[in-house]
Amino acid sequence: VRTIDWSGDHVVIVEQTKLPHVVQFVELRTVDSLIGAVRRLAVRGAPALGVAGGLGVALAAVEATARALSGAAWDQAVRADAARLRTARPTAVNLAWGVDHVLERLPAGHDAVVAAAVALLQLDIETNRALSMRGAALVRELTDRPARLLTHCNAGGLACVEWGTALGVVRALHEQGWIAEVFADETRPLLQGARLTAFELAAMGIPHRVVVDGAGPSVIARGMVDAVVVGADRIAANGDVVNKIGTYPLALAAKRAGVAFLVAAPESTIDPATADGAAVEIEHRSSDEVTEWLGTSMVPPGTSALNLAFDVTPYDLVTALITERRAVRLAADGRLSDEAAPTST
Amino acid sequence: VRTIDWSGDHVVIVEQTKLPHVVQFVELRTVDSLIGAVRRLAVRGAPALGVAGGLGVALAAVEATARALSGAAWDQAVRADAARLRTARPTAVNLAWGVDHVLERLPAGHDAVVAAAVALLQLDIETNRALSMRGAALVRELTDRPARLLTHCNAGGLACVEWGTALGVVRALHEQGWIAEVFADETRPLLQGARLTAFELAAMGIPHRVVVDGAGPSVIARGMVDAVVVGADRIAANGDVVNKIGTYPLALAAKRAGVAFLVAAPESTIDPATADGAAVEIEHRSSDEVTEWLGTSMVPPGTSALNLAFDVTPYDLVTALITERRAVRLAADGRLSDEAAPTST
Repeated sequence: VRTIDWSGDHVVIVEQTKLPHVVQFVELRTVDSLIGAVRRLAVRGAPALGVAGGLGVALAAVEATARALSGAAWDQAVRADAARLRTARPTAVNLAWGVDHVLERLPAGHDAVVAAAVALLQLDIETNRALSMRGAALVRELTDRPARLLTHCNAGGLACVEWGTALGVVRALHEQGWIAEVFADETRPLLQGARLTAFELAAMGIPHRVVVDGAGPSVIARGMVDAVVVGADRIAANGDVVNKIGTYPLALAAKRAGVAFLVAAPESTIDPATADGAAVEIEHRSSDEVTEWLGTSMVPPGTSALNLAFDVTPYDLVTALITERRAVRLAADGRLSDEAAPTST
Repeated sequence: VRTIDWSGDHVVIVEQTKLPHVVQFVELRTVDSLIGAVRRLAVRGAPALGVAGGLGVALAAVEATARALSGAAWDQAVRADAARLRTARPTAVNLAWGVDHVLERLPAGHDAVVAAAVALLQLDIETNRALSMRGAALVRELTDRPARLLTHCNAGGLACVEWGTALGVVRALHEQGWIAEVFADETRPLLQGARLTAFELAAMGIPHRVVVDGAGPSVIARGMVDAVVVGADRIAANGDVVNKIGTYPLALAAKRAGVAFLVAAPESTIDPATADGAAVEIEHRSSDEVTEWLGTSMVPPGTSALNLAFDVTPYDLVTALITERRAVRLAADGRLSDEAAPTST
């Protein structure tokens, strides 16, 4: 089952807001419907957003072709749709990366655009499988018995096409018989940990427990995990990691406890144009996501929430960044840079 | 309005599980009903639990007297009820403190027991007003404009009899025109921040916003607050602070950001019999508190939660501990001890 896929002339996604109790597939036949799905997190996760960006350009091409546009008008229509999609969510750089990657094929016409977009699906799977294997090897270096891990949000197959990033590392280790237990932060406000990560862990038959986000640092401090493994929505040029809100406290706790803090993400998550975490636009989402539970207000009248969707983990708290190409020991080697020699694992 | 009170021959509490939308008073006429209210957090907060412990002994005396017991039988009945109440929740030391404080008057008989218990109400108010004034003075030392504060869980009037501890400091500052804004961590799983602290802040007319627990450390890192102020459920002999789960990550973030981390608690919260935080029994509560929202399961079938109710903040992360008697600069002066000279503020 693919989280996001292309079916002839349209996109199909797993509707993630309905999980874990309902597995529903939704067909997206317009760029507008795709933008809506991205905004309400029906499709989410940095790698999946990268693919969605690429497939969205294909959708735009299909729409423009169906309107009998051609030449400059066709080109202009596709670029206009692509520009709107590119900024549907501001923080994950992969969305813009996917859009731009496929837009490069625009001069080659409709079929080339669709082919480039569809190729992103397989590329995502291969990329994440590769980084998962590299991450698993690193965890095995760090542990002398099956690993107890903690993760945050969902960086699993549901955040990608099929293979996850952080949860891809877990999956690879599980296939090697090297997972003892996984703690999943529930990840407020939208519970991607409790709903999605637990769903994937249960499906894989991996022993796991959910904890509230405030408990993650205690689980680390109490010696209950061997490593923390998370994904990333954007990695700045200096190695600062932007990820789901609640990641930073885990990194602080891991540092104090001497526990490895690992970030697993494709190279497309690295944004050389952004100097550091402070330069990344952090998405502010609706107050209602925090203050309402299943439509019921949990706060007094007049109280609202500040709903920061992401936080910044400074590079010096990151034990290693694992991509499909390299494992960079950020905390030890200093900043991420093009010059950083890939460290083999 | 008092959170907990004595009315002739029984206890009256504000039913905190119904807040913020329903303000309901509940009469507790037996020790069993009081124990039930303590266990389901209808009455909670370390200082309020101290008073509940004392009033519970008075209830036990009323019950034993009503059963026409006297002498050794009366004494034995009261002590048996007191012993059950004393361990209704394991972490906050104040519950045992309140029970023991009133039990000391047992030899003096029924009226003396009730009088000692009732005296705890006024003592709690005076104690917390005193520590609030001391805490407010310390915050004013730390700030050169009206303060922006962050707090966790509820250490307000609803956690005490009438005046809060951490939120008592906020109240005192507000009365001096020295509060710009307060951020309230929602405090999963039971939302004491979103439901109770926001309720008190709204009632006082204090500008405030709720954040998910994972966002508190980011609010600190982004320079949005001048200090963090929390209460405590138990403070070990070395100064380690046990408080609601999710407190520790705030202390880590405050340390890294150079933001003051203040703990406001009555002296009765200090437990000289406990060497350090590692020696404190951390209450494990029901998995359902985490996995269910308003009765609806948010996790896949078979997934359960580890529900740690409290965490430990090591003393070196605590800028100052403020009680009704002293302000101890734990991070600077080293461990808390009887020898620690009270620092005036």
